[in-house]
Amino acid sequence: MFEALETGKRLDKATFDARELVLREQLLQYQFRLVDHKVPTIIVVAGVDGAGKGSLVHQLNTWMDPRGIETNALWMHSDEEESRPYYWRYWRCLPRRGEIGVFLGSWYTRLIRERLEDKTDAARQARRLAQINDFERLLCADGYLIVKLWLHVSSETQHLQLTEEAPRQQQNPRIEADASAWQKVYPQVLQCAQEVILASDTAHAPWHLVEADDRNYREIACGEILLEAMRGHLEQPRPPAAEPLPALADTSGGQPTVLDRVDSKASLAKEDYRKLLPQCQARLQDLAWKAHRQRRSFVAVFEGWDAAGKGSAIRRVTGAVDPRLYHLAQYAAPTDEELDHHYLWRFWRKIQRDGRATLFDRSWYGRVLVERVEGFATNAQWQRAYNEINQFEAQLLEHGTVLCKFWIHISSQEQLARFKARENTPHKRYKITDDDWRNRDKWRDYELAVEDMVAHTSTSLAPWTLVAGNDKHYARIQILETLCQALEQALD
Amino acid sequence: MFEALETGKRLDKATFDARELVLREQLLQYQFRLVDHKVPTIIVVAGVDGAGKGSLVHQLNTWMDPRGIETNALWMHSDEEESRPYYWRYWRCLPRRGEIGVFLGSWYTRLIRERLEDKTDAARQARRLAQINDFERLLCADGYLIVKLWLHVSSETQHLQLTEEAPRQQQNPRIEADASAWQKVYPQVLQCAQEVILASDTAHAPWHLVEADDRNYREIACGEILLEAMRGHLEQPRPPAAEPLPALADTSGGQPTVLDRVDSKASLAKEDYRKLLPQCQARLQDLAWKAHRQRRSFVAVFEGWDAAGKGSAIRRVTGAVDPRLYHLAQYAAPTDEELDHHYLWRFWRKIQRDGRATLFDRSWYGRVLVERVEGFATNAQWQRAYNEINQFEAQLLEHGTVLCKFWIHISSQEQLARFKARENTPHKRYKITDDDWRNRDKWRDYELAVEDMVAHTSTSLAPWTLVAGNDKHYARIQILETLCQALEQALD
Repeated sequence: MFEALETGKRLDKATFDARELVLREQLLQYQFRLVDHKVPTIIVVAGVDGAGKGSLVHQLNTWMDPRGIETNALWMHSDEEESRPYYWRYWRCLPRRGEIGVFLGSWYTRLIRERLEDKTDAARQARRLAQINDFERLLCADGYLIVKLWLHVSSETQHLQLTEEAPRQQQNPRIEADASAWQKVYPQVLQCAQEVILASDTAHAPWHLVEADDRNYREIACGEILLEAMRGHLEQPRPPAAEPLPALADTSGGQPTVLDRVDSKASLAKEDYRKLLPQCQARLQDLAWKAHRQRRSFVAVFEGWDAAGKGSAIRRVTGAVDPRLYHLAQYAAPTDEELDHHYLWRFWRKIQRDGRATLFDRSWYGRVLVERVEGFATNAQWQRAYNEINQFEAQLLEHGTVLCKFWIHISSQEQLARFKARENTPHKRYKITDDDWRNRDKWRDYELAVEDMVAHTSTSLAPWTLVAGNDKHYARIQILETLCQALEQALD
Repeated sequence: MFEALETGKRLDKATFDARELVLREQLLQYQFRLVDHKVPTIIVVAGVDGAGKGSLVHQLNTWMDPRGIETNALWMHSDEEESRPYYWRYWRCLPRRGEIGVFLGSWYTRLIRERLEDKTDAARQARRLAQINDFERLLCADGYLIVKLWLHVSSETQHLQLTEEAPRQQQNPRIEADASAWQKVYPQVLQCAQEVILASDTAHAPWHLVEADDRNYREIACGEILLEAMRGHLEQPRPPAAEPLPALADTSGGQPTVLDRVDSKASLAKEDYRKLLPQCQARLQDLAWKAHRQRRSFVAVFEGWDAAGKGSAIRRVTGAVDPRLYHLAQYAAPTDEELDHHYLWRFWRKIQRDGRATLFDRSWYGRVLVERVEGFATNAQWQRAYNEINQFEAQLLEHGTVLCKFWIHISSQEQLARFKARENTPHKRYKITDDDWRNRDKWRDYELAVEDMVAHTSTSLAPWTLVAGNDKHYARIQILETLCQALEQALD
């Protein structure tokens, strides 16, 4: 693979200048067109050490308007990064729509490092690759343009670079470690890079291999590749911005759904509740501290009908967990910064460190519930969300997070009764809005959405718990019990 | 001080229930009124260990709508926090306008800890206290409501709590360490707390001392204090939202300003520039790596007239620094999340870790430049900004950050010439907008704003460098030289 990149390609100064003049103007033009189209762009700059990745990044910043470019150098990791799922570090620096994120050090780094340090096996390697491809596919589906550059230099050039023997203006400014160490692993790096590149060279995010011995050549080549990618992205046929959503016809003909299997009569006598609640809470309290000591995080998702008792159930959970140990993330309409990112970004940014809990009062499932039913998401968007969600949760689990998902179910009659009761209680009146009444009319649509959600996302590792909510006491104990059991199973 | 808090105050269940009923409804009402008025609220929950701080936080979340409350438990510090100026950790979790941030562990923690560990002296203690008061004053001036609660329990109650001998529903869930250790420091904690409370009990952010032995009493008392504070905040006379800004009359009668002292003829021959540039850049490159090894961060602020050459000067700096070592933060119009915080928040969030550089292309000085001249900030806002900025920079310096501030000055004629040249160069045309032409009409207003800015914020530790920018080569070398000297002086 890399032999083809040692052919001695170079550009003299005059040719460089001439091509740069054209390239520069065009890059700028396309940068602004991408801003107009609100396209977020990701440029991955990878390659062997000494290949001039840093100087390429300088050059791109010079050619384009740096006001829309953010360079992310992820080469050293903080403990905040290490103590969250691996991709958290990338999610937190994804570019906004219309901006360009340059990544020096990327989601490829770990895979290659693990290989070089011989800390992996075929199965893990395959999983990492699948994650990379999933991540890139998810971004592309959301309109991201991903340009991946691999800079190759020959072993001799690398040696010159790392020993500072290269001509001045070609020099690699970062001479940290023993050059001979790099030289020794050069063949392994190439072998490993080849496998990774082949496995991640997808139609939506292809690799571009660039011969990098000559600085002039490599910079013009990369600039032109980028330009071509921008142009191609803007010219590709795209679906209309707001795909009209057909009214959701109920083709189910009143068939039962998975929700009908929830026992609407399940209940708990008040005296039993009074006895069980403090027991469950004490158990959860101990488990939360135990999880903290073992540096395990846990995530609980709370979804359910309006007035199903999400808030009061969450309070029974938070009432048991030391406030130092949990973070409650609550979701209403997204902010403009949130809208300018992939919809999962607003959830990633709230994931807590190891040893702490994150409770989600409404969650990423909004995409396939309210956004689907109300038409805030296009069909394509919510349909691919099942897969995106499963991958997201798989990452949490892989990191060692304990995950519980609750749908609190109440019957339509019960909801009506609660709405009326809320209107009559001063400190509860604020909880009921016109939206709640409107949503009741879409009961069946939501029912079908829940059924699809459970079908697509209740996996063996991350199952949904459908909570029988007509009796609040019963529901709360069921939730606390489920959480405790999940933690007990997971902790040593 | 604390003897008055050991009087045996308690509430029986019936009284608690009766007062809770009223309190709860009112708290909610006022919470929503604060949302309507976009008032951000900060609740500091402090007190000796075992005083029930955690359970109070639970209670507040139960009484009010938890959707608008974020609890921040800052009790363990991450390396990302430790490697940035101390207040960074608080800035990043300040509540947005209309929301409530509860702080368990706050800007008081360090001061008290240092005292207990005997790691401080009178001078440092005084500085810490001044920082606390500055921070709170700055927030209050921006419309924040700050409620500070100190929960006191007697030594005996603390003992019961920490040894789990308290009645069940009174228990402190967090029994971590040896209870006797806490008991031993109890007198010192009180002594220290007393001093801190006295010194930070300000009119805008007073302390509320609460006897906390009885859970019923302490929770009702704190709830009522909070309610009173909310009510008081809403009833206080406030300046009209958008204070009309009088046209800036030029009372200076064409007097010279500090900018007239910049040598408009300073220049550098092209051959000298060609020789000096790589020298300066190599020097800066080495210094940036040295700073990294010594874990020192540096911050450079770039301000100047439109077309003064900020962008190209910054590129000469970034061209010298490895992209892994710097972050370029660029500022245009704020996002809605940014508008919903104090104006300094958007700068705090970009401050990089120890060992890295943050370059600001436009900065917090926008408040006293463009926002002042264009009337985006009220008189009161920009006038108090000088002080806020000086305090902010003092924190950077205290943390060990090397700070350089550049105003790149060009003459009005030079600007005109550059505007015209930009219009004639394809890849520079994007840099010139109608706004730039409009701003030229306000040249004198900006000149006066710059003069005031320099007068107020050029301190001995954080001086402004007024760069002679008519000759771009001269300006770039001056900037690189200044940065290098500042780093050389600061590094070992």
